[in-house]
Amino acid sequence: MTALAATQTGIAALRDAYLHGTLTPAEVAEQVIAAESAPGVWITRVAPEVLRARAASLDDPSLPLYGIPFAVKDNIDVAGMPTTAGCPAYAYTPDRNAPVVDRLLAAGAMLVGKTNLDQFATGLTGSRSPYGAVESVFGGGLIAGGSSSGSAVAVAAGVVAFSLGTDTAGSGRVPAALNGIVGLKPTRGLLSTAGVVPACRSLDCVSIFTLDVADARTVLDVARGPATEDPWSRAAPGESLPPAAVRLGVARPDVLEFDGDHGQAERYVAGCLTAARLASAVTQVDLAPLLEAGDLLYQGPWVAERLADLEDFLTGHADAVLPLTLGILRGGEGYSAADTFRAQHRLQALKAEAARLFTAIDVLALPTIPTTFTLAEIAEEPLRRNLVLGRYTQFANLLDLAVVTVPNGTTPEGRPASLSLIGPAFSEDTLLGLAAAFKGEALAVHHPQPPTVELAVAGHHLRGEARNAELVALGGRFARTTRTEACYRLFRLPTGVPGLVRVGAGQGAQIEVEIWRLPSSAVGALLSSVKAPLSIGYLSTVDGRTVQGFLCEAYAAGEAQDITASGGFRAHRQEEGQ
Amino acid sequence: MTALAATQTGIAALRDAYLHGTLTPAEVAEQVIAAESAPGVWITRVAPEVLRARAASLDDPSLPLYGIPFAVKDNIDVAGMPTTAGCPAYAYTPDRNAPVVDRLLAAGAMLVGKTNLDQFATGLTGSRSPYGAVESVFGGGLIAGGSSSGSAVAVAAGVVAFSLGTDTAGSGRVPAALNGIVGLKPTRGLLSTAGVVPACRSLDCVSIFTLDVADARTVLDVARGPATEDPWSRAAPGESLPPAAVRLGVARPDVLEFDGDHGQAERYVAGCLTAARLASAVTQVDLAPLLEAGDLLYQGPWVAERLADLEDFLTGHADAVLPLTLGILRGGEGYSAADTFRAQHRLQALKAEAARLFTAIDVLALPTIPTTFTLAEIAEEPLRRNLVLGRYTQFANLLDLAVVTVPNGTTPEGRPASLSLIGPAFSEDTLLGLAAAFKGEALAVHHPQPPTVELAVAGHHLRGEARNAELVALGGRFARTTRTEACYRLFRLPTGVPGLVRVGAGQGAQIEVEIWRLPSSAVGALLSSVKAPLSIGYLSTVDGRTVQGFLCEAYAAGEAQDITASGGFRAHRQEEGQ
Repeated sequence: MTALAATQTGIAALRDAYLHGTLTPAEVAEQVIAAESAPGVWITRVAPEVLRARAASLDDPSLPLYGIPFAVKDNIDVAGMPTTAGCPAYAYTPDRNAPVVDRLLAAGAMLVGKTNLDQFATGLTGSRSPYGAVESVFGGGLIAGGSSSGSAVAVAAGVVAFSLGTDTAGSGRVPAALNGIVGLKPTRGLLSTAGVVPACRSLDCVSIFTLDVADARTVLDVARGPATEDPWSRAAPGESLPPAAVRLGVARPDVLEFDGDHGQAERYVAGCLTAARLASAVTQVDLAPLLEAGDLLYQGPWVAERLADLEDFLTGHADAVLPLTLGILRGGEGYSAADTFRAQHRLQALKAEAARLFTAIDVLALPTIPTTFTLAEIAEEPLRRNLVLGRYTQFANLLDLAVVTVPNGTTPEGRPASLSLIGPAFSEDTLLGLAAAFKGEALAVHHPQPPTVELAVAGHHLRGEARNAELVALGGRFARTTRTEACYRLFRLPTGVPGLVRVGAGQGAQIEVEIWRLPSSAVGALLSSVKAPLSIGYLSTVDGRTVQGFLCEAYAAGEAQDITASGGFRAHRQEEGQ
Repeated sequence: MTALAATQTGIAALRDAYLHGTLTPAEVAEQVIAAESAPGVWITRVAPEVLRARAASLDDPSLPLYGIPFAVKDNIDVAGMPTTAGCPAYAYTPDRNAPVVDRLLAAGAMLVGKTNLDQFATGLTGSRSPYGAVESVFGGGLIAGGSSSGSAVAVAAGVVAFSLGTDTAGSGRVPAALNGIVGLKPTRGLLSTAGVVPACRSLDCVSIFTLDVADARTVLDVARGPATEDPWSRAAPGESLPPAAVRLGVARPDVLEFDGDHGQAERYVAGCLTAARLASAVTQVDLAPLLEAGDLLYQGPWVAERLADLEDFLTGHADAVLPLTLGILRGGEGYSAADTFRAQHRLQALKAEAARLFTAIDVLALPTIPTTFTLAEIAEEPLRRNLVLGRYTQFANLLDLAVVTVPNGTTPEGRPASLSLIGPAFSEDTLLGLAAAFKGEALAVHHPQPPTVELAVAGHHLRGEARNAELVALGGRFARTTRTEACYRLFRLPTGVPGLVRVGAGQGAQIEVEIWRLPSSAVGALLSSVKAPLSIGYLSTVDGRTVQGFLCEAYAAGEAQDITASGGFRAHRQEEGQ
């Protein structure tokens, strides 16, 4: 397979080349047109002249996905192209893009085509499609994994820089694992599923495949957001933690099963050790509630949720569906409404257990897949081995979790390993930050929310001083130490509290301050914890910046001790101590 | 029925009497023991000696429910008393209280007994019980409504000061309407349903009956809160709005149905007119998505949710269940898992529509019941008339809404009317505030969250000035106008911005300021919208109080115009204008 040069396939690398004028979207379009893909990756490709016209039409290099080639799983609508869901008899040609595709196109991305999948996104092997079984880029007859098989291979082979998959039970993570790339399965509802063929409507997610974690975040930032009238859309609250603050959970060894694959077991331990060094704490956890929830998905009434949308189609077209897929779907007919409610009640209890788990840890690291299989091995035992593949993925959407999968080296046999970093709903920023650190990527600091402010402290809120813990408790994080402009005087009030007073130019000194980053919403609580004559206003620092910070009203200086000469409260304390 | 004196049945009245020493819990216990109730209200009463002992054991009058007699619907567990759910063959005797009962007892309440209900809480008439049909306190053969029939009558008749019911389709609201009392159906999960016989587990709520809105809030504040390991518990975010800020929705006349009951239709209009005068805006709204959701509950697969918990019991005890109830429950057998998921998908779309409705309004006022029926009328058409009763209540839990019902006068025929004030999840404070205003009760200001601060403004944030809109947009509400202590000077900076500087005693003047109430979390955003030399600190006002407020750093006064003599920025502007 000829593909883009390795250095130019990622989004960041392409953007860099465009900005430096060493490459144009038209050139990338030609490379994509010339690239040959392995059999079975694509169901429909965009015609070369259409791709060329798209490249030629792009005129705003500032767009976040300007000239970035991408692929879309063929259960997501693109206007004017058939949506097959891997079943020719089911195919229809929509006249509107799925909103998530619209967002990518509006950001400058270039659509290359629609990719193969396990029929109706039902399966984790990549081999259940009338358009052909898909092989992993690792070769040797290894399965690509599914159901988003084509989307994963298109990225891993370097034909496109990113792709969209979908993920109900692991379809966006298992193929990432089997092709050595990054898979982001966002929180349910964060990316709209409007214009997506439903598998289990209440659980379906659109997922993202990329080579790098940073690229996944770029696509997420473009693709996320509610679509008008999509009832499954949800707003994203929540904060992000830097990797160094993450409390990591890993699986207790006795609850893991690798089906005898010692190489995968070793890679998991190695991955946990690496992740542990990045985190603030590590705990071993039980997986019982997660595994029980996962079993509900394929071995309980949720199979009937697939049927809920396909029952009408199956009535007239049973022979148009793969026998294996049909068998799975028909399995849903055996469940009653009462069965469904009982299973949902049990799930509610398991959700509560998972929620408790995620009060003790922030991120759970698990193997993405217990082992790998070849196409021949899957053909031998298609149902059981499919279940094995989903063991560590299929509970995530039922329990409302977000997951980022990252490559985790290869086993001694040369098979790819992958680590899943799992967090509660809307923990994407935390997961992506840890994933990037794990992968050794430098990821720009990213706080889409909540808004934070830089705040200067000069007295009792300094590290090591009495009120520092309050700052930390309010979500404050130390940023740096610096000094004010030379127009401040530092006083020690009769209560012992230090206070900074701005005076005229030339009448003050540079006073040492610490800059902390604090959620803007916590400034009020911080102010409420102090008293007059302290206030929070604006300080000028020696590097010419203005930051928020504690000030002292000038009237109070009259009765206070002037400690300006010490250069800062910390130095003053040391002088005191001598 | 002999009952407590009318002035002493409410919680507030009883507490007042206890605090003033004019009454003791022991005396109230004797009154309760002596009170006769109408037939069918109670299933099990606490023995007189147990009630006396309870009264004698109470020793902390500061407890919020000290000495307050209450009743519990007989599908909620009380240790050592049978839980029948209205079906003797189903009865069991728990050894633990439901956590919600524990909270009430810990707050000093005195349990009087367990009350009658429609069997398995299935029904809205109060006539489907082997323990007898219950008549409304309005008499004339009028039904008490159900399923919490006994709990509503026990309060309405003044035997107890409050009671617990449950509410899945309207069981906590319909009997409140038919007995002229307040019914609070809180947000799902706000009160724990642990220890409650499930009807539809995913929808069930514990509800509260009282005579007054203020009493409902007292009980809510005690009863709310998660129970350990209760998977349906939810935390309560959200803010409250004072009545004057509420945007009220009322039903478009063409979408209402009163089954020919002109008196009820008139009362509804009258209630809307009263509520409209209390609110900030009124909009007429369509009810289609609400009514469609309501139809799903009894005419869709949710009937099978009742079956999910009772199927095993029915297998051996079908003849122990009322034929009408059995028929309803058996109706759940006709739904498949796929039917269930399809209905849940439709519900998700309706939820999204309801969520959009509640971005345009804060509270929706609807009739609680379209009309009233006598026991004889229910016996004629038990199923159809039951459905009529639930028309305006049965959608609330499916759509995750909270509701307070308040008495709304009587029709020309002397039948009780009731208004339901409906809001989104966790809007209880807003609903109770509006309900109290509607009922003409003085309700103490109650803002459990979010914390707010009083903030003084003296310049551009004053009403009518340039930046006042920002204060309002951040959730600020004007509180009052006052003056600072006489130790401030007011300056006009070269930028035109006014600023208050504190100076020594006797060197300043009293400056007019406005006090605004602002969410503490918005103080940071407010500060971020201004620049140095402004800060937010503490001001002393002429009444001896300290409030947060805008200050100006003293160094900036040097180049500024001293406008202290004007007494305030507003007066200064008037002088300017002259």
